[in-house]
Amino acid sequence: MTKRELFENIKRKKSFLCIGLDIDVQKLPRNFVKNTADPIFDYNKQIIDATHQLCVAYKPNTAFYESMGAAGWEALEKTVDYIKQTAPDVFVIADAKRGDIGNTSDMYARAFFSGMNCDAVTVAPYMGEDSVSPFLAYEKKWAIILALTSNKGAYDFQTEKINDENLFETVLRKTQKWGTDNNTMYVVGATKAEMLTKIREIVPHHFLLVPGVGAQGGSLQDVAKHGITKECGLLVNASRSIIYASSNDDFADAAKAEAKKMQAEMEAILNKYQLA
Amino acid sequence: MTKRELFENIKRKKSFLCIGLDIDVQKLPRNFVKNTADPIFDYNKQIIDATHQLCVAYKPNTAFYESMGAAGWEALEKTVDYIKQTAPDVFVIADAKRGDIGNTSDMYARAFFSGMNCDAVTVAPYMGEDSVSPFLAYEKKWAIILALTSNKGAYDFQTEKINDENLFETVLRKTQKWGTDNNTMYVVGATKAEMLTKIREIVPHHFLLVPGVGAQGGSLQDVAKHGITKECGLLVNASRSIIYASSNDDFADAAKAEAKKMQAEMEAILNKYQLA
Repeated sequence: MTKRELFENIKRKKSFLCIGLDIDVQKLPRNFVKNTADPIFDYNKQIIDATHQLCVAYKPNTAFYESMGAAGWEALEKTVDYIKQTAPDVFVIADAKRGDIGNTSDMYARAFFSGMNCDAVTVAPYMGEDSVSPFLAYEKKWAIILALTSNKGAYDFQTEKINDENLFETVLRKTQKWGTDNNTMYVVGATKAEMLTKIREIVPHHFLLVPGVGAQGGSLQDVAKHGITKECGLLVNASRSIIYASSNDDFADAAKAEAKKMQAEMEAILNKYQLA
Repeated sequence: MTKRELFENIKRKKSFLCIGLDIDVQKLPRNFVKNTADPIFDYNKQIIDATHQLCVAYKPNTAFYESMGAAGWEALEKTVDYIKQTAPDVFVIADAKRGDIGNTSDMYARAFFSGMNCDAVTVAPYMGEDSVSPFLAYEKKWAIILALTSNKGAYDFQTEKINDENLFETVLRKTQKWGTDNNTMYVVGATKAEMLTKIREIVPHHFLLVPGVGAQGGSLQDVAKHGITKECGLLVNASRSIIYASSNDDFADAAKAEAKKMQAEMEAILNKYQLA
């Protein structure tokens, strides 16, 4: 998907919501798990059916699938396929935090872009350019590089000072030269929204993937205030607050209601900034 | 596996060789691939049968398996099982370069330590303590944290200066407080062997996983000179130079010969430092 197509989807759907499909089988309704042969995929299917008109992206986190072994990996493949069949306009992010030496990152890119039809992969920057560039070699595909993450551990290294700037700023500065704002995005946690002004000075045009709204406590209004651009430039993710909105068999309806709430808030923001 | 057990294995086998099982199906002998239903696992099986007495660790890199989809993941699971059945004294490293927020790293730890019976997972440090600590919560299991990697991109961030030291030194200093030398190792590329003296000042007792000997050009003698400890403290990895030592049907014999050559060199080093 191109940046322009993504922005068109945002305007049409009046939403910049990304839904994190982080399915932990231990958190699913017991009855549901008992009555289905493939609980992870079937749960996702219901969530996708209920929410795909309210969001512009889905973000399955690979860890949750890998924890179920080969069957989990298969559920991930089926989930990506199902999204692409049901809602081909939705951007699919493999939240995988990958990154390795060149010939190995090549393999990860092959896994997520050829093996699966994902649009983007999240990538850790620690290993540098040759670990990131293989993800940039696919047309209309994206690398989403970790800059400032939403967790407490973000303060261990990402905010260490290098020549009077934070490491995450050095990451933004260097990595933006490896690709363009048409194939690179950045992860910036909503829990650090006040940093977005600084970040926008360095990457004024890149899309940011913003986790941390919802269960992690970040504010959508703050994110928009400091991070929105003329092309929106934001994909705001919520995972647990949507997919586990109910722990009963009405989980899909509850997810829809929660997604609708966020979409409405986003619509108001897009209107306010004259983007819808 | 404990550190002591690992060192005992090194002394008994007179080897600190780790063999990287980075199987790219496109590089396997065509006839072999044609005549087996599960080429990746069957190739690994022959490599393992041929080499397990010469090495103390295997390191499958997850990227190569993921690039084959669910079938690849299954081949990875079967490979780890086969190692643990055939050679239970061999340390198994999932070279996965994982690392995410706490509840997600939990899932990765579950995938590799409970789902599979790996002894260690390689972990990227960028996201900080809560991304690493879930891997340290399993008894006799290890996190192997990226410090200074073997690739060109290592110079993009890992050698950026923070308070007059390199970022990788900051990583060593901070992360060693999160665990102990009984559950944490570090990745240090053999291509940067001259840095090992500095590294040993910070982590004198930790095991180091050293890739980059062989195809990537690092020297085993240099690594030993600057990095060896009283408990050896080194796992030196070779992947392509061993597993693709021949591109014909004699690949297992060729792998064995190549592994034997490295083991002999390691035996001489262990003797020289009075460790065997």
